[in-house]
Amino acid sequence: MTEAVVIIGSGLAGYNLARELRKADANVPITVVSRDHAGFYSKPMLSNALAGKKTAATLVMKPAEKMADEVKITVLAQTGVTAIDTAARVLTLSNGQTLPYRDVVLALGADPIRLPLQGDAADTVLSVNDLDDFARFAEALDTAAGGAPVQRVAILGAGLIGCEFANDLLARGIAPTVLDLAERVLPRLLPPEASARLQEKLQAGGACFRFGVGASAVNRSGQALSVSLSDGSTLDTDLVLSAIGLKPRTDLAAAAGVATGRGVLVNRQLATNVPHVYAVGDCAEVDGTLLPYVMPLMQQARALAATLAGTPTAVAYPAMPVVVKTPAWPTVVCPPPLGATGQWVINATEEAIEARFTAEADPDRLLGFALQGKAVAQRQALAALLPPVLG
Amino acid sequence: MTEAVVIIGSGLAGYNLARELRKADANVPITVVSRDHAGFYSKPMLSNALAGKKTAATLVMKPAEKMADEVKITVLAQTGVTAIDTAARVLTLSNGQTLPYRDVVLALGADPIRLPLQGDAADTVLSVNDLDDFARFAEALDTAAGGAPVQRVAILGAGLIGCEFANDLLARGIAPTVLDLAERVLPRLLPPEASARLQEKLQAGGACFRFGVGASAVNRSGQALSVSLSDGSTLDTDLVLSAIGLKPRTDLAAAAGVATGRGVLVNRQLATNVPHVYAVGDCAEVDGTLLPYVMPLMQQARALAATLAGTPTAVAYPAMPVVVKTPAWPTVVCPPPLGATGQWVINATEEAIEARFTAEADPDRLLGFALQGKAVAQRQALAALLPPVLG
Repeated sequence: MTEAVVIIGSGLAGYNLARELRKADANVPITVVSRDHAGFYSKPMLSNALAGKKTAATLVMKPAEKMADEVKITVLAQTGVTAIDTAARVLTLSNGQTLPYRDVVLALGADPIRLPLQGDAADTVLSVNDLDDFARFAEALDTAAGGAPVQRVAILGAGLIGCEFANDLLARGIAPTVLDLAERVLPRLLPPEASARLQEKLQAGGACFRFGVGASAVNRSGQALSVSLSDGSTLDTDLVLSAIGLKPRTDLAAAAGVATGRGVLVNRQLATNVPHVYAVGDCAEVDGTLLPYVMPLMQQARALAATLAGTPTAVAYPAMPVVVKTPAWPTVVCPPPLGATGQWVINATEEAIEARFTAEADPDRLLGFALQGKAVAQRQALAALLPPVLG
Repeated sequence: MTEAVVIIGSGLAGYNLARELRKADANVPITVVSRDHAGFYSKPMLSNALAGKKTAATLVMKPAEKMADEVKITVLAQTGVTAIDTAARVLTLSNGQTLPYRDVVLALGADPIRLPLQGDAADTVLSVNDLDDFARFAEALDTAAGGAPVQRVAILGAGLIGCEFANDLLARGIAPTVLDLAERVLPRLLPPEASARLQEKLQAGGACFRFGVGASAVNRSGQALSVSLSDGSTLDTDLVLSAIGLKPRTDLAAAAGVATGRGVLVNRQLATNVPHVYAVGDCAEVDGTLLPYVMPLMQQARALAATLAGTPTAVAYPAMPVVVKTPAWPTVVCPPPLGATGQWVINATEEAIEARFTAEADPDRLLGFALQGKAVAQRQALAALLPPVLG
């Protein structure tokens, strides 16, 4: 029997790779190992699910058996991988069995960063990073500590995920308070004018923002919770949602002798330092770059599928706009390359903001953009003017 | 001297290929031949330019000299190609000179389809397909037949471009009348419910639609124009804009013995039937498919750049959402593959329409989608659930 390509992880990266590989090679055995139910769903939809009245059940596009059937793969659900023997090319599974591989692909994803919070309710702080988390979150919204539906939610972090959940909670009639140590929303993605406008629009919908403060403790206070803030004040709330950021999962790789940095280190062909071990998706640090977004993982899946099907292929990144799912003020951003020097040139009207990031030395050289309101319609037209991120 | 890769055409396809190829190969001489000014701009922005208060001059991101400098290419502006000698590998230029090539890439684009209109003002009908067209259009809006600014515009065609221009004219305070032989807007891209909603929103902004009628003649009528319609009625207007569709430019290829169908026929490596002749962009019929949108041409540019740099690479198409630039009712569609059988499942609210096209035999199998209103935020999250178009 030909040995399988084993993909560890059933998120968008894992399943997109499986699909691309099946298209490129009709015969190679493919096994997807997943520590959860392995249903096919889109994680980015979790932060928009309330407005769409979606539940954990309806978010699943396809159960594992269906995916197995459709893509002609083996899916091992509820199965962890505890070790990789890279010399023997064998995985040890959480059920004690072993699984040999021809090639193994780490599509492990990322964990939410947890703040080291004090207090007797620190363990009630939720993050929504997968479907099970979402189910817990939805249930918690329905029944707060005292049994009544949640009225108040504190969101830790005013980045992309924090703002998306803030917007989504508004659709549910809940006015969240968003806290961040930074001074504005999405400071790493948007110029100040665009941050300000997004904040305004979310405020107009009912959200509150408190900047320059961090949370240090969460304590029970009657039926509610009390969040202690770094400025000495407290905030009463019914539920705390943490959206600080993500940390690529690297432990399994590191334990197997695979080089890791911030993520699992791979080259442009998505190969690690160990033969027959690859990585894709949010866990992969590609050529020094971590881009935990949808478009990069789809590019990676295509390139790696070609490589695994026998045509060594480097991943290429075109300019890849990132959609911030804040319907209250639609925002799309194509961040300038890290370390690029230049300036934002902003064209703001009541209905739209168009911000172009141009090179310091050459104002005709477009390096990135942020579009808001009606200007988001220009996303593809503008992206085509940008040079590729990785050519 | 190493002979050059010659790219005929300076649109997004031509220049994106030049940039990708330069990234992949620092040294190969690259020449872009263009029959116009060869400034770098984004054609899709033409149908959104009025709302953004852009002019033909400000739409140009970079003049030809700047592109030449930045990408390290030779740009021959205002230069047509009149013939390709594929045996000798030499182009004949409109200025009488010849230009040898190592490889030649046809990035010729497409011509607007012209209706065979009768009448003494048929020659006043405009199409906006390039920057010069846009300059004429903008000028015509400022000064109608009688010297006064245009109040009324008739748009022939309620497809993507027709709807985009209709929306853009609204931003200028002009209420267009849109005519189409079909019964609804974007019939090939949207399900009926989504067509209806887009039409409603454009109507709410002031646009008029007349379906099931075609134009047969355009005549002068005092200071204005009179359009004769197929139902025997006439429509008075100040300006007629034709947005019927596009026809790939194939004449140059056909004359050189390059096989053409609807477009220039190329395989997955963008190669024609003639050695060293390739095609990309709106003129290229790739593996039987014409996709005159931004994302396909960017995928093509990347694949062909790799091939021309020495690594034969087939183009891959992921699911590629198409943005309909109608800010009055934001719309993004990922059309199901041609010939796919299935049904639209529609979830409509006042603020959004989410339409999923699922396979006939398997309602869990997502094949395409159309998103409108606030649902457009889901575009990337949903696209990741779709199988690749060409894997």
